[in-house]
Amino acid sequence: MQGLHLTADLYDCRCALQWLIEPDLLGRHCVQMVQTAGLQAVAHLVHAFPATANGHSGVTATVLLAESHLCVHTWPEQRAVTLDVYVCNFGADHSAKAEALMLVLLALFEPLHVERNRMRRGQVTPPCAPA
Amino acid sequence: MQGLHLTADLYDCRCALQWLIEPDLLGRHCVQMVQTAGLQAVAHLVHAFPATANGHSGVTATVLLAESHLCVHTWPEQRAVTLDVYVCNFGADHSAKAEALMLVLLALFEPLHVERNRMRRGQVTPPCAPA
Repeated sequence: MQGLHLTADLYDCRCALQWLIEPDLLGRHCVQMVQTAGLQAVAHLVHAFPATANGHSGVTATVLLAESHLCVHTWPEQRAVTLDVYVCNFGADHSAKAEALMLVLLALFEPLHVERNRMRRGQVTPPCAPA
Repeated sequence: MQGLHLTADLYDCRCALQWLIEPDLLGRHCVQMVQTAGLQAVAHLVHAFPATANGHSGVTATVLLAESHLCVHTWPEQRAVTLDVYVCNFGADHSAKAEALMLVLLALFEPLHVERNRMRRGQVTPPCAPA
């Protein structure tokens, strides 16, 4: 279960509005980006939130991977997006593929500002103290 | 998009094996736990990986939330699980509900050892340097 979990919070995304509001388009493209990065999509699911008086609402796209998951949430009214790319390294080290997938996602949304984080998951050699 | 992302990596889970290998059971129970915590499930998806010569393989269960997402990955051969509970606080602060959901998930899997993390998401007030 040892793995790498990359997160990114994107602000002022300059991409075409369609990427922030069209769930099927975004979902299909996420699957393609996963495959291009060399990761294995096993299922995907999208959801569109209903529009409000403020205009378009966001979408969620998740791709379940043989290696763990990708999750994308969009806030079109704020031109903001959050990304999670989590890969476990069972059988092989998929870290470089996760980094590559994150880069193409960032390129898709074209944020002016990004807050990124990386977490190593499943690193503990028990026994350790329960949290 | 400001929110709270809780993660937990669980080791030596003493729960009944069914929670680690039965995707539909786990998925339905995740939706119930989400609702009990006061969060809003909008869709869910599960996937079971094929068994190997080493025995049962894991499952993935994800619940898309009005507030963001829950993801569960299991490794029955290692009695290990990873959990992600991510809530955005758009409209209201859902942090306490996220913490409550994490607690019932931990209670379900009964790990002997846990590595937990909490990330604040979407905190940056632009302009900030692109990563």
